[in-house]
Amino acid sequence: MKFEIMRDWLLEGLNDVMKAISQKVANPILTGVKMDVNEKGLTMTGSDSDITICTFIPVEQDGEQIIRVIESGSIILQAKVFSEIVRKLPTNDVTIEVENMQTHIQSGKSEFHLIGSNSDEYPVLPNVKDEYRFSLPSDLMKSIIKETVFAVSQQETRPILTGVHWETDEEKLVCVATDSHRLARREIVPEMMPESPFSVVIPGKSLQELNKILEDNSDVVEIVIADQQVLFKSRNVLFYSRLLEGNYPDTSRLIPSEYKTTVQVNGRKLLQAIDRASLLAREDRNNIVRFSAEGGNVIEVSSNSPEIGKVEELIEAIDVNGEDLKISFSAKYMMDALKAIEGQDIAIHFTGAMRPFILKSMESDAILQLILPVRTF
Amino acid sequence: MKFEIMRDWLLEGLNDVMKAISQKVANPILTGVKMDVNEKGLTMTGSDSDITICTFIPVEQDGEQIIRVIESGSIILQAKVFSEIVRKLPTNDVTIEVENMQTHIQSGKSEFHLIGSNSDEYPVLPNVKDEYRFSLPSDLMKSIIKETVFAVSQQETRPILTGVHWETDEEKLVCVATDSHRLARREIVPEMMPESPFSVVIPGKSLQELNKILEDNSDVVEIVIADQQVLFKSRNVLFYSRLLEGNYPDTSRLIPSEYKTTVQVNGRKLLQAIDRASLLAREDRNNIVRFSAEGGNVIEVSSNSPEIGKVEELIEAIDVNGEDLKISFSAKYMMDALKAIEGQDIAIHFTGAMRPFILKSMESDAILQLILPVRTF
Repeated sequence: MKFEIMRDWLLEGLNDVMKAISQKVANPILTGVKMDVNEKGLTMTGSDSDITICTFIPVEQDGEQIIRVIESGSIILQAKVFSEIVRKLPTNDVTIEVENMQTHIQSGKSEFHLIGSNSDEYPVLPNVKDEYRFSLPSDLMKSIIKETVFAVSQQETRPILTGVHWETDEEKLVCVATDSHRLARREIVPEMMPESPFSVVIPGKSLQELNKILEDNSDVVEIVIADQQVLFKSRNVLFYSRLLEGNYPDTSRLIPSEYKTTVQVNGRKLLQAIDRASLLAREDRNNIVRFSAEGGNVIEVSSNSPEIGKVEELIEAIDVNGEDLKISFSAKYMMDALKAIEGQDIAIHFTGAMRPFILKSMESDAILQLILPVRTF
Repeated sequence: MKFEIMRDWLLEGLNDVMKAISQKVANPILTGVKMDVNEKGLTMTGSDSDITICTFIPVEQDGEQIIRVIESGSIILQAKVFSEIVRKLPTNDVTIEVENMQTHIQSGKSEFHLIGSNSDEYPVLPNVKDEYRFSLPSDLMKSIIKETVFAVSQQETRPILTGVHWETDEEKLVCVATDSHRLARREIVPEMMPESPFSVVIPGKSLQELNKILEDNSDVVEIVIADQQVLFKSRNVLFYSRLLEGNYPDTSRLIPSEYKTTVQVNGRKLLQAIDRASLLAREDRNNIVRFSAEGGNVIEVSSNSPEIGKVEELIEAIDVNGEDLKISFSAKYMMDALKAIEGQDIAIHFTGAMRPFILKSMESDAILQLILPVRTF
């Protein structure tokens, strides 16, 4: 195996693959990156057995030569040290040559010799049998992830809740995450839906890594769902994730459909007020703030920490409708939900101080955030 | 006590004072910041008993009104929560009022009520009896710190080595740090020297914090040295540090004056080559690289890690003079020393493979870096 490659391309591809590689894996071969070069280009693969990422660098793109292949072949290199080496190479021209597992990496007057492993030792890629297939723009995929994944459970007591539920519902794709204290839901109407309905749970961690790799543009990401795996395909990257096994709870009946109080307010203003009010609450480690709407269009957010002090924030709402209300909730959950709706004007619908309440953008019904209150009043 | 203040000024002053405040202090009152306001302005004080920082914000500066004092007074507030509050206040206009230790902080529609402590409980400031006094430009002070402080010992086995030795030597000020494996020395000829010679050891940690506060300009910093304290005075900040007790070892005889091999090379080129060569050495956790000059103006830096691989770097030197040389040393020490000399052309003077060697800038004799080699060849 011998080829010349432009360092910047190699580095970019490596950075993507590295997101799947962990130093804490049962199989030590997975601390390595697999490199395959042939006349079409270089494919690099990294995996922690839950997530597998393959990136492809073509020999030529847009008329620019990126790789000159002298001899095809493959090798596994220690990913951490290899990526640090590539990052620090002195010139943009890199030659990589393998002789008997000895890998020579040469750039300018630097020459590295790494001991590689036989690529036959690398696990075979998951076989994703093409059961359901559809596609979404890359930037929309990123939004969906950002609006839901924060609400997955961080605890392994109910493993199914550590994933995001993706399910078809007639012409819609519905994505839901909940840790049983709050819930985030995003609905999408894809241009092309899979032919038959499906319901899968994708690990939150996989989606977070996928989000780092996807670019913020409208390029198409193809989604292929099989029995135990999902594959996200973008131009030069294949991202495989295992799916979580088990039944996701039915969350639809949690969502109230009748409201007693509705507050319309600017999301950013509310976020900043909650952030300040929670400064004292955080010191107390419970992080609970109180919210009240008692006449007029002014709402109050407050918190009280007996040892440190208290805070009151008044916020001019756009509109307050319905019964007077006093309610307490986690400042963190509220801030997460408001960040997901990202500064838009929002409507908060309450059904009483001890009932879950929901947040929606006033511009669209696509995002719904639900939070369970806390008893303090 | 009641005053109005511009948030940005308050925040800047607080940020400086916070550098002295630690949550890990024996005396809980020191987790607070002391605020004193009078008709001249606001003074804030923070201390961890080793370092004490006072910042002063004047009522008016350059014709701009910064503070409106309604009633003088003083209070101690929990520093961490107070500074977070100030950072997040919604407007630039802040009113602070103290009634019976209850401190009201009001800005826009946010109102905080913090429980303060009586300012009488705050320890009195160190009394720095004016024994030696001189001054240096702020940017020069920053350079001196940067060029020496990294070489102090991180271990408490010889506490005196955790400080930087500042000593007068006729018309010069000599600053030396060593951890007994390497040494950094900076000489300065101040415009104004103290009237009598002195020798003090300033804790490395104090100098690191001072460096964060000093601005990178030519404003004068006055240095007042007393028995157990040093005081650095800039326009609106007083920075007190205790001095280390004990005798600093005589380091001058460590520095060789005769050389067998001299290599002149660009510092930045060498730094990058050592950085790359150490990538493999670091994985082995010894972090030793080999350096050889054996004929011609090309030097080689290499390292070898039996399990991972090896690396060779060739560097075009400006000049190589004297005996052939093979030597090994800590890549970290070499990189620290080269960073201190900051990319200039440098001369490295060797006296044999097992003797300390020194690095100097080719432009100036003011900085000297010394490193002890390691036996490997």
